[in-house]
Amino acid sequence: MIDIENKKTVKEPRITLVGAGPGDADLITIKGIKALKTADVVLYDALVNEELLEFAPEHATKVYVGKRSGDHSHSQEAINQLMVDYALNYGHVVRLKGGDPFVFGRGYEELDHAASYSIPAEVIPGISSSIGIPGLQHIPVTHRGLSESFWVITGTTADGKVSNDLYEAARTRATIVVLMGLHKLAEITDIFKKEDKNRLPVAVIQSGSTVNEKVAVGIIDTIVEIVEEKKISSPALIIIGEVVSLHPMFQPIREFYDIIAQE
Amino acid sequence: MIDIENKKTVKEPRITLVGAGPGDADLITIKGIKALKTADVVLYDALVNEELLEFAPEHATKVYVGKRSGDHSHSQEAINQLMVDYALNYGHVVRLKGGDPFVFGRGYEELDHAASYSIPAEVIPGISSSIGIPGLQHIPVTHRGLSESFWVITGTTADGKVSNDLYEAARTRATIVVLMGLHKLAEITDIFKKEDKNRLPVAVIQSGSTVNEKVAVGIIDTIVEIVEEKKISSPALIIIGEVVSLHPMFQPIREFYDIIAQE
Repeated sequence: MIDIENKKTVKEPRITLVGAGPGDADLITIKGIKALKTADVVLYDALVNEELLEFAPEHATKVYVGKRSGDHSHSQEAINQLMVDYALNYGHVVRLKGGDPFVFGRGYEELDHAASYSIPAEVIPGISSSIGIPGLQHIPVTHRGLSESFWVITGTTADGKVSNDLYEAARTRATIVVLMGLHKLAEITDIFKKEDKNRLPVAVIQSGSTVNEKVAVGIIDTIVEIVEEKKISSPALIIIGEVVSLHPMFQPIREFYDIIAQE
Repeated sequence: MIDIENKKTVKEPRITLVGAGPGDADLITIKGIKALKTADVVLYDALVNEELLEFAPEHATKVYVGKRSGDHSHSQEAINQLMVDYALNYGHVVRLKGGDPFVFGRGYEELDHAASYSIPAEVIPGISSSIGIPGLQHIPVTHRGLSESFWVITGTTADGKVSNDLYEAARTRATIVVLMGLHKLAEITDIFKKEDKNRLPVAVIQSGSTVNEKVAVGIIDTIVEIVEEKKISSPALIIIGEVVSLHPMFQPIREFYDIIAQE
């Protein structure tokens, strides 16, 4: 606790939500780095590259608030309150979040909590895994003749289910990107099978942009098995659509089905 | 032309597609800056912030290849060929593109052209306007209870039409982001009216993240008029969905309809 006399010397509270990008520390923005350099406190998530903490001043307090941590799990409410408490007591809090703060990041809840205490807040976007990770693999989310749109959907809703939006998505020609859906991959591919899209190309990318990156490429009918063989684990992103056929690993798959078609 | 003897001293050709982000120069990634610092040639688009060219070495050739230019319009084929010619003659070409190279950026066509000449190519993602521009306005593309997905669609397909995907999108609960669609705003809102979504919140953001930024917030029934009043022009992004109701400018709109409902 800080007593009243000390409190007078405390800086104005403010909060900056910063997207740290998909994992590679170099995929943060210049603006994100500038925010870190003026941080008094950094609250960071499990998927944030810890190298980024070095951009914060030495005096800055760095607090891990990852929800993946086994022994001390931070609820969203606890993070919201911690963020506000630190801002009121220390000044500038940088809330460093994986990917972009608003792509399934619950960033708006944090912004809203800051607003309820009248603490000024700024948002600095980050490279969302949904676009950046396929891109690094040379899979374009859109490409003339193959896809005029892309639809990014959560594989884990608030009640732990696959989003209902995925059932509708499976009927469209959009490129579909599913985040946090690896543990539901079989359920997701079943949705596409019901729409007779058994041969639609699919890629699953684990830990994209980091040294732990692993890639599986197949079709709706085969991807579950390929992911098991390659021992791909979370965090992973699923990309479904004709654009996946542009990945070099798809070439032998195409040739295999071409041979079958000729027989 | 370079003669054979000189050619021996030329660096290995390579190409890096770099996403420059939505406009603010600070919204490029560290990785993008590092690529620029080793560029021999930079080919840049109309929507790229020209301040970024200062990161390229002094000796680097900077070539504007924007398709918006009135007097000399570069076709995609011309850009592809220019990129390869420069790489073969000068070494490292940085292809600096607005937003992310693969979000309606025709980036894969450039990558494919490089591959056809066996020129190694790398992709560095950028902040896509589709996520970053709403985010800077504190409009989250996803938010618990309001949206479990977002669908990014082009307002101008290869044949100049609104993508057919938009007709399907209007039937879903996804947040819809339309890029390059301002000149078709009336047509787009008609699609939503046919689905009885007259009161769905909509925002139109011109030149997001730059000094020319302008924002219009309304509902499907009113947004065309508001955009005209505010004299909003291209480039602009349209965001449609309940998440737009979180924008501060939406509060008076909500109150207006609440009063009507009570009468």
